[in-house]
Amino acid sequence: MSIGIDELEDLAVGAAFLGTGGGGDPYIGRLIATKAIQDCGEPTVLDLDQVKDDDFVVTVAGYGAPTVQIEKLIGEGELEKALAKLEQHLKKKVTAIIPAEIGGSNSLVPIALASRCKLPVINADGMGRAFPELPMNVFSFNGISASPMIVTDEHCNTAIVETASDRTAEKITRAIAIELGLRVFIGCYPMTGRMVRECAIEGTLSQAIAIGRSIRQRPPGSCAIESLMHCLSTIYPDRESRVLFTGKIVDVQRDTADGFSKGSFRIEAFGSGQSAELIFQNEFLRVCVEDKLVAVVPDLICVVDEETASPITTGALRYGQRVKVIGIEAPPQLCSEQALTYVGPECFGMDFPYKSIATLEAEAADKAPKSATAV
Amino acid sequence: MSIGIDELEDLAVGAAFLGTGGGGDPYIGRLIATKAIQDCGEPTVLDLDQVKDDDFVVTVAGYGAPTVQIEKLIGEGELEKALAKLEQHLKKKVTAIIPAEIGGSNSLVPIALASRCKLPVINADGMGRAFPELPMNVFSFNGISASPMIVTDEHCNTAIVETASDRTAEKITRAIAIELGLRVFIGCYPMTGRMVRECAIEGTLSQAIAIGRSIRQRPPGSCAIESLMHCLSTIYPDRESRVLFTGKIVDVQRDTADGFSKGSFRIEAFGSGQSAELIFQNEFLRVCVEDKLVAVVPDLICVVDEETASPITTGALRYGQRVKVIGIEAPPQLCSEQALTYVGPECFGMDFPYKSIATLEAEAADKAPKSATAV
Repeated sequence: MSIGIDELEDLAVGAAFLGTGGGGDPYIGRLIATKAIQDCGEPTVLDLDQVKDDDFVVTVAGYGAPTVQIEKLIGEGELEKALAKLEQHLKKKVTAIIPAEIGGSNSLVPIALASRCKLPVINADGMGRAFPELPMNVFSFNGISASPMIVTDEHCNTAIVETASDRTAEKITRAIAIELGLRVFIGCYPMTGRMVRECAIEGTLSQAIAIGRSIRQRPPGSCAIESLMHCLSTIYPDRESRVLFTGKIVDVQRDTADGFSKGSFRIEAFGSGQSAELIFQNEFLRVCVEDKLVAVVPDLICVVDEETASPITTGALRYGQRVKVIGIEAPPQLCSEQALTYVGPECFGMDFPYKSIATLEAEAADKAPKSATAV
Repeated sequence: MSIGIDELEDLAVGAAFLGTGGGGDPYIGRLIATKAIQDCGEPTVLDLDQVKDDDFVVTVAGYGAPTVQIEKLIGEGELEKALAKLEQHLKKKVTAIIPAEIGGSNSLVPIALASRCKLPVINADGMGRAFPELPMNVFSFNGISASPMIVTDEHCNTAIVETASDRTAEKITRAIAIELGLRVFIGCYPMTGRMVRECAIEGTLSQAIAIGRSIRQRPPGSCAIESLMHCLSTIYPDRESRVLFTGKIVDVQRDTADGFSKGSFRIEAFGSGQSAELIFQNEFLRVCVEDKLVAVVPDLICVVDEETASPITTGALRYGQRVKVIGIEAPPQLCSEQALTYVGPECFGMDFPYKSIATLEAEAADKAPKSATAV
């Protein structure tokens, strides 16, 4: 598998979809990756089984609030300088890059860096989606430390952070990001190839490309949503995926607060009068339909244009958009007891445990009155 | 000159006085320095003219809000580990330590570190007093960069910060300090001995010891305040120093906000009914008597016990204390046009320019009605 300029558009769309509303603006990410590949060529892509035990891998990502990231772009050489500084501190050369998350710009930034530094990029990531906080990934779940990590901005202000816990690293990094204008880059989770093979979520770059392609290049005559849903059931055969709601956005509340883009919005169905409410913190966290929970983190909640199936990031939500909300069961690595202490509903201030979209659907069907289910 | 356990008590008292209310709790600082000297012996003290061109010097200091520093103490080995980590990053061995400021614990911490690391400590500092923010010192005024700097807490969480400007370093360090509980240590301003000789404020450790001695060991029969004022006129022959107000504290407002200990308090004179209001941000910033300005930063504003002349830090202010407010003209290095852009009244949100206590007194005398001045 290779990622060239032709694949970048599919990847940008697919990654924005898997970014569940966050992960940074895909347009910006694509510009950066395109320029890098034009300047320095396509990076090699390694599947997980091609990663060697003694490879030395770091994750890189944009970090902050997506609402800011579209206004405060990446400086020339910023990523390479950050990597070089981290290598200098670690006294070790990085041999491969892995995306921290799959999300709009955050799957494209590692490709740009890999291209510019002539390093391979690994077809995997730490989340299988995007999440708003640093330790919300399989590396932290598995005891791999985020630090020593580097935080850098476009003026090359940098901090090399070393902490005993990744939650402290998140607190410090968030505080630094706020001071530097909520758009910084981080390089973190220095680890061996073996560690990556043991815990990364596999194949997510190629899955994102497949998803993007199903949206952009649907078979003639088919509708975009059908093409997308077919793709999802093919690439995630063991994970439920389905349309949770369809309607028009009638209300959006959005705030850049505490270093995040936080808010909620409401969708009204056409005709039935039903409405759905979604909340987000950089990423979509929860969907309720008529006050009934139908999906919650870590399950993926994706909002797409009703017609074109183009993913809509939290920053692009607008009154009047006609959208579909799609739910996908989370990868199993995000659903373990340990993982849910990092990414379960409680981690986002909700006071109920995680249930998958399939479980929630089954419970709803059980509770529905017989006459209603017969209709 | 040497600093042994005998000198520490005088130094703690004198430094707390010059700390103008801040600089950290002198008691804590003295405990740390005493233990270090007991364990590792007295550090050598270098006068500025003994510092060699190619010495490699850093400043060290406690940083945060003094109100917190008395509850969150220094961990075993914390200072040495921080210094070692900074040296490792700089790839250079430090050959001498200089206090960032003269203030309660912040003149004693460098002595503790110097003792433990067998390094000399320089009889000078960057402020000639204490100030609440990082770049408020002669090194910044003279273009010496605070970074690369290290920030560390008692759990050895660390950040090595490198910024283009010291003001950005302050913002990042403040944000990190807030996340880590507002009591961290910093090592910063790596510089050559020549740079230190060119801009440091000379002799401040020995001045602090002299001030402390004048308060603690006053000649028999003399009053403590007299002894102190005599000492001040001796060590600062070219700088005005005088008692600005005497009275009882009748109101204290104090808040730990934005990473500082901020507040104000009021003193009522005995008999005359006059009252003075002081404001502080870690350190005392301004004195008004009956709404008339009588002293403002960077002039030193020191509050002492009326009877014993013991300095009172902002954290120790209490209703009912009988105090004297003493003003001392700032060292000339803090009064240049360039320096005032870092430490003048405007830097603390006041909308008037700096005037020295001598100037303010002369202006008040000019404006006073003839009959009043005749009294």
